[in-house]
Amino acid sequence: MKDKMRLNAAGRLVPVEVNGEPAVPYQGVENYRKTGCKYAPPIPSCADYPADGNKQVSSLEEALVKAGLNDGMTISTHHHLRDGDFLANQVFDIAHKLGIKGLRWFPSASFPCNAHLIPYLEDGTIDSIEGSMNGPLGEFTSRGRMKKTAVLRSHGGRVQAIQDGEVKIDIAVIAAPAADQFGNANGLSGPSATGVLGYAEMDVQYAGKVIIVTDNLVPFPCLPMQIAGNFADYVVVVDQLGDAGKIVSGTTQITRSPDRLIIADLTARFCEVTGIIYDGCVIQAGAGGISLAIAEYMKQIMIRNHWKIRVGFGGTTKYMVDMLEQGVMEYILDGQVFDTASVRSLNENRNHQSFSVFNAYNYHSKGNLTSLIDVVTLGATEIDVHFNGNVVTHSDGMLLHGIGGWQNCLFAKNTIIALPLFRNRIPAIVDEVTTLCGPGELIDVVVTERGIAINPRRKDLLEKVKDSGLPVRHIEELREEAVSICGTPDKPEFTDKIVAVVKWVDGTVLDVVRQVLC
Amino acid sequence: MKDKMRLNAAGRLVPVEVNGEPAVPYQGVENYRKTGCKYAPPIPSCADYPADGNKQVSSLEEALVKAGLNDGMTISTHHHLRDGDFLANQVFDIAHKLGIKGLRWFPSASFPCNAHLIPYLEDGTIDSIEGSMNGPLGEFTSRGRMKKTAVLRSHGGRVQAIQDGEVKIDIAVIAAPAADQFGNANGLSGPSATGVLGYAEMDVQYAGKVIIVTDNLVPFPCLPMQIAGNFADYVVVVDQLGDAGKIVSGTTQITRSPDRLIIADLTARFCEVTGIIYDGCVIQAGAGGISLAIAEYMKQIMIRNHWKIRVGFGGTTKYMVDMLEQGVMEYILDGQVFDTASVRSLNENRNHQSFSVFNAYNYHSKGNLTSLIDVVTLGATEIDVHFNGNVVTHSDGMLLHGIGGWQNCLFAKNTIIALPLFRNRIPAIVDEVTTLCGPGELIDVVVTERGIAINPRRKDLLEKVKDSGLPVRHIEELREEAVSICGTPDKPEFTDKIVAVVKWVDGTVLDVVRQVLC
Repeated sequence: MKDKMRLNAAGRLVPVEVNGEPAVPYQGVENYRKTGCKYAPPIPSCADYPADGNKQVSSLEEALVKAGLNDGMTISTHHHLRDGDFLANQVFDIAHKLGIKGLRWFPSASFPCNAHLIPYLEDGTIDSIEGSMNGPLGEFTSRGRMKKTAVLRSHGGRVQAIQDGEVKIDIAVIAAPAADQFGNANGLSGPSATGVLGYAEMDVQYAGKVIIVTDNLVPFPCLPMQIAGNFADYVVVVDQLGDAGKIVSGTTQITRSPDRLIIADLTARFCEVTGIIYDGCVIQAGAGGISLAIAEYMKQIMIRNHWKIRVGFGGTTKYMVDMLEQGVMEYILDGQVFDTASVRSLNENRNHQSFSVFNAYNYHSKGNLTSLIDVVTLGATEIDVHFNGNVVTHSDGMLLHGIGGWQNCLFAKNTIIALPLFRNRIPAIVDEVTTLCGPGELIDVVVTERGIAINPRRKDLLEKVKDSGLPVRHIEELREEAVSICGTPDKPEFTDKIVAVVKWVDGTVLDVVRQVLC
Repeated sequence: MKDKMRLNAAGRLVPVEVNGEPAVPYQGVENYRKTGCKYAPPIPSCADYPADGNKQVSSLEEALVKAGLNDGMTISTHHHLRDGDFLANQVFDIAHKLGIKGLRWFPSASFPCNAHLIPYLEDGTIDSIEGSMNGPLGEFTSRGRMKKTAVLRSHGGRVQAIQDGEVKIDIAVIAAPAADQFGNANGLSGPSATGVLGYAEMDVQYAGKVIIVTDNLVPFPCLPMQIAGNFADYVVVVDQLGDAGKIVSGTTQITRSPDRLIIADLTARFCEVTGIIYDGCVIQAGAGGISLAIAEYMKQIMIRNHWKIRVGFGGTTKYMVDMLEQGVMEYILDGQVFDTASVRSLNENRNHQSFSVFNAYNYHSKGNLTSLIDVVTLGATEIDVHFNGNVVTHSDGMLLHGIGGWQNCLFAKNTIIALPLFRNRIPAIVDEVTTLCGPGELIDVVVTERGIAINPRRKDLLEKVKDSGLPVRHIEELREEAVSICGTPDKPEFTDKIVAVVKWVDGTVLDVVRQVLC
């Protein structure tokens, strides 16, 4: 491997080959141009599909066999069922039972429930995962136990990889909370309602075979057709797609931590003082405790000024739905739903609409909706003094999180990282991020409970906060304060083995994750 | 040309090369399998689009020049503005002014208003049209005056040709009744509202460059995003896209002709007697005078039996909207809007939804919605004694109509052609159709004011009408009666020159249209 490593434009040593396929080292935020054409799946013919439009088969196993499940294939699933997902695990139960080996799992994200798959990673049923990995699967990977190298992509990067043919999906297995026998599907109703299905749309369009799995078969037509049945090969009805309580919950809550409320308050005040939020602004709010608190403080600013938020981009929670229903927010554009209030709103409110990840996040398209967002507030595991960000590993080197939409959101007009200065006596502001996920030039502001650091590139913002009374500090000062409180933590120890690569939004390799020395 | 002709599976002599490109002769309704992959447009990058998402340029000319308008290119437009379209004509006014030559116009349909383009066909600005052609452009073609051979495709065949790369669109110019500066667009509002934009969706996804033209620029976000701005290169604002009175009208009316009302009544009664319509059936109604009358009679049958139509496929008119609002129809799936009542309903009623032509009509997909339709009633210029249908030429050989969705609808469970036995003393039931547009094996029933002919292949229907009292007759009898009334009309006279080819839904050549001998 070592002779196939190159220093990329971020100064990280990365491989030029991953799992036997050529890989392009990162060349800078906007410098790489992929030439060539999008991936083109084979041309089907209606003549090969049932004349009466009924594509239902008796079981998931039958559908997988008919779809030609075989060794070495790439199987995709989406993550709208979140930690309540039963389906992805079932797919590999069947593959294991059939003696299939060497599968690549290509989820849009994984959750702790997918720890179920670890035995299959061990016995060779699955030999690699490419997708945002959370918790147990990340740790399994970090310990060097996955047969191949994991590939970590953002949500947008996943879409880019599908579109550009970097990952060819053999079989897409789509959990559909509502579907008809033709394969038209949506997430809006049924016991496993997920609201939207945006993360599945690309898979459906580009996969060789598409299996729609539902626990809520409805008579034709299943409307709206978030998934058009014209892309479906088979429809399967199962008893239960997932655990409803873990798919969407009513329990997403604003943080109660006094430190985190300070962070949220500072972030909102910073946005007001600098004019980043204004009457008609476009924001992205996340579902984390700090993000929800920021949204709540921004709401108060809006109300006080008699302003409205033009659009809030979801992941959606009841806090955003409240803003919509109270007239503080005019529209919600929704890529992902976190609670039942949001599912209800999607069903009822014409100003709350779903959109595909394709439309917001795919860097290889003709512009992205993210560039229209005035401000995103994001978290991170680490930010370094060059404003580089890490979201996948902890400072101990362990891979524990996916990238999600984090990289894609960095293209908003103003990107704020809101995070505590330290967690469990581990500083979050560091000399150099353990793993580089986001180049510092795209991160404008870092807000902690002990002060706000503004990227020196953003002279305009530095100018605007003068005399504001906000605790603006140099990022080095914040790092020093963290160290003075926590001490300098031990550097993580790694072996030489690369267990994962981190892709940039354009498909180039931004960094690697190495095996932790246990 | 003659040595490059082959007899196809329908017994028609067709070329194996059209405009210098290879062409495949028709091989039977379902026998041809196109191998290979779908067309793949080049991979774009967000880095090449405005960081603030604003793609507006000052004029259509500027957009066309920036898009690289050049000799020999293929320019696509859609027909949702119908006979009120100003935009398609303006595109070629600009091309002419710039001295561009040899363009191929690829509209989803043309209308009499496009007679404006005849001088450009004469001076070489445009050298061919591929698309459904109506009226003056059809006559121009029939007289052998177009430089290249016209290619006539159904709506679904057009989508198939784009998807499969048979027609590569260089620049798509999209009339958008509402759009934002990023290029998100829909047809739902503004002075040129068309309700839906389904005929433009494929162009937008596959064209090299996409220009969104609107007379109703709205602040971001233009919702719903019937067209996603991620596919748009440029946005242009013009004073007026078209003549609103001709785009949608409130004047679509049921026929008052006694003969045609008989046809409609017979059709509806036939559908009831044979069980083709039932509680929960799916129908497609057209916007012609007879079709509207059929829908009205079917409505009465539904009400009398306390039945509901599960889905009505549009082209939508106020008659269908009435059924929806009165509870006789549960859903409208809408591909095209014919009047203002339908635009209003689309905006207000969640059970009235638009769909893309792609989802209903593209034969090279994994099944089509049309196969789920219980009954379609269609017109024709001629039906022959083998149940073959013609919709593009008249019996005098003149090309005067497009195929529209006619071929695609033939795949419904039951296809009924409803037409008068003769028009202007020209029989509509003939020995052999002048131009073959639809193979007889897909046409189940022909209803005229003087009797109903059932295709002998449909023994089930023949059985069901026994003792029904309906005037069921052999199609030969109908032809003889037409001749006995009208006499045998002169056969049209043609030169050897092929002026147009008629494609089947799979892209093969079903028939040719020859130059009329003037």
